[in-house]
Amino acid sequence: VNMEHQHLRYNPLRDTWVLVSAHRMKRPWAGQVEKPPEEHIPRYDPRNPLCPGNTRANGEVNSDYDSTFIFENDFPALQPDAPDPGSDQHPLFQSKAARGICKVMCFHPWSDVTLPLMKKHEVLKVIDKWAGLVEELGTKYPWVQIFENKGAMMGCSNPHPHCQVWASNFLPNEPALSDRCQRAYYKKHGEPLLLQYARQEAEKKERVVVENSDWLAVVPYWATWPYQTLLLPRRHVLRITDLTTGEREGLADIMKRLLTKYDNLFEISFPYSMGWHGAPTGTHLKEDNSHWHLHAHYYPPLLRSATVKKFMVGYEMLAQEQRDLTPEQAAEKLRNLPEEHYKTREN
Amino acid sequence: VNMEHQHLRYNPLRDTWVLVSAHRMKRPWAGQVEKPPEEHIPRYDPRNPLCPGNTRANGEVNSDYDSTFIFENDFPALQPDAPDPGSDQHPLFQSKAARGICKVMCFHPWSDVTLPLMKKHEVLKVIDKWAGLVEELGTKYPWVQIFENKGAMMGCSNPHPHCQVWASNFLPNEPALSDRCQRAYYKKHGEPLLLQYARQEAEKKERVVVENSDWLAVVPYWATWPYQTLLLPRRHVLRITDLTTGEREGLADIMKRLLTKYDNLFEISFPYSMGWHGAPTGTHLKEDNSHWHLHAHYYPPLLRSATVKKFMVGYEMLAQEQRDLTPEQAAEKLRNLPEEHYKTREN
Ligand SMILES: O=P(O)(O)O[C@H]1O[C@H](CO)[C@@H](O)[C@H](O)[C@H]1O
Ligand SMILES: O=P(O)(O)O[C@H]1O[C@H](CO)[C@@H](O)[C@H](O)[C@H]1O
Repeated sequence: VNMEHQHLRYNPLRDTWVLVSAHRMKRPWAGQVEKPPEEHIPRYDPRNPLCPGNTRANGEVNSDYDSTFIFENDFPALQPDAPDPGSDQHPLFQSKAARGICKVMCFHPWSDVTLPLMKKHEVLKVIDKWAGLVEELGTKYPWVQIFENKGAMMGCSNPHPHCQVWASNFLPNEPALSDRCQRAYYKKHGEPLLLQYARQEAEKKERVVVENSDWLAVVPYWATWPYQTLLLPRRHVLRITDLTTGEREGLADIMKRLLTKYDNLFEISFPYSMGWHGAPTGTHLKEDNSHWHLHAHYYPPLLRSATVKKFMVGYEMLAQEQRDLTPEQAAEKLRNLPEEHYKTREN
Repeated sequence: VNMEHQHLRYNPLRDTWVLVSAHRMKRPWAGQVEKPPEEHIPRYDPRNPLCPGNTRANGEVNSDYDSTFIFENDFPALQPDAPDPGSDQHPLFQSKAARGICKVMCFHPWSDVTLPLMKKHEVLKVIDKWAGLVEELGTKYPWVQIFENKGAMMGCSNPHPHCQVWASNFLPNEPALSDRCQRAYYKKHGEPLLLQYARQEAEKKERVVVENSDWLAVVPYWATWPYQTLLLPRRHVLRITDLTTGEREGLADIMKRLLTKYDNLFEISFPYSMGWHGAPTGTHLKEDNSHWHLHAHYYPPLLRSATVKKFMVGYEMLAQEQRDLTPEQAAEKLRNLPEEHYKTREN
């Protein structure tokens, strides 16, 4: 199998293809360079609305929290009580009501830490809170999207370590597509797509970045972002709420290791957007969702260095996503990086 | 119909939904700001590989061109002779051969002009060359993607006015999806989706930005990018090659007017990615493609100012695209801008 030449790879979770043009890494880059992430963030900033004890835009005062802290987004994209927009019923002008809730969760009281630099028991606390939010919001909403935008490059406007949770009364496009694909695969092959995939990757090894007895992080065969990874439990798990205590500990371990490698790649606090996908909730809790398998997607934008990212633009927006190094090359690079964080090594 | 509150809108070209949260524009922005585009570009730069008479990376010398200039991309993502990668045939590890060709077309010999600042007959030349490339490459390839990445913000690494043309032996994801949606609509409603859409928008007016007797530019009902537009011929046209001389002149007119408004919005050279979608070519030339209607998509990233863009990140990548102003608000803003370019007004 010759993977050095351009070829297409199939993404079974989205029923799409990605163009892999490995030879293209040789091209020089004279385009936009990004500002590397700020490395000197104060532990506490009296003007930062996410720090303990500070006052937010709406006048609310944060508690003097000492681990995680959850509050409602002051500028939510989804509110619980939006009216039905009505619709002129023409098939080309269809609208629907959208209702939901947006929350923010601070991971830690300090602004100068990130998940890989936090202690394992602190990361575990974050995982427990994630599960708690899915449990709570999932009773009402069919989809609870946990996501983290990390770094200014990924539209994150606050350096304090935090994630967001947007719950909605509708199944958004991406999980709806993933649901269709996993369902069809299960029907045809009698096994959950991602469970089978995790087993195969654990055997093949070439795309594995880190693993432990409960979890596997791989650069998926169909990765579109240069250093994209997929985090999967080995056991069949539908939702984050179903993880055992042992699996949560294993998740804290693998997250710390994966994110340390990410930071070590270019020796910066690595920007990414990440999020969890699991079986839908709300009324779907009563349905058979055996085709689902819990997983997290990590989408980091950087390609060549701390300042040169991959632009998903013209061809990618209008035709098809294209990548410049193979997933195997990316996995090998990440796998070979040390598991000690460059910041703690320095001292 | 209350459009001030959040709601969902359906995109019939992609069979997806977009979350519209108009109230969110009120939120302050403390995140990343972009560098405004360089305004002082020399007309001729001896080191710029796109200028007339200069030598490119591969040693080839550009002709002393005085209108458009087409050459093969020196670092192509698609090459004509890539070998078949083979496949281990497992449904989760599918690959396919990808073959094609990548060309670059300079719009003008000068580096300090852009389409809206070019003369109408110069823009017409670009349109004729676009049609010529689709004609030529379309005999062999099923898809010929013409696209322009404009501005460093959109991954464009050279300020010289130019576009790219990537032709492939496969139908990429986006046109494949659009083909499915248009086909299904045609079957159900007996009329091409976008032809019906153009007629309706011409009547409704509220999303029209500019129009002339042959063309219509609208912020589509389902726009995801803040100032996204859709450019449509009024007559049923399958491909850019089918445009009459009059329609090409009308296209040069509407392109100049639309792009002038874009530049006038924040008084900068407005960044965007744009591209053409028309009926597929190659072996598809012999098929009935009446469901298709030629159109161009413009995807500009800016949201609030010359330096604050919309980030399509966490929620958008993992769940669903979300916008912060309504398409009607965006259309109104663009519609009310002058049709004289801010740069020529200054003098
Ligand atoms: O124009 P370039 O430098 O070839 O490349 C640019 O457009 C390509 C096609 O959209 C993208 O794949 C690249 O990421 C972008 O930087
Ligand atoms: O975290 P913020 O500031 O609410 O917003 C950020 O994440 C949102 C969800 O992905 C995006 O819609 C915004 O464009 C981005 O800037």
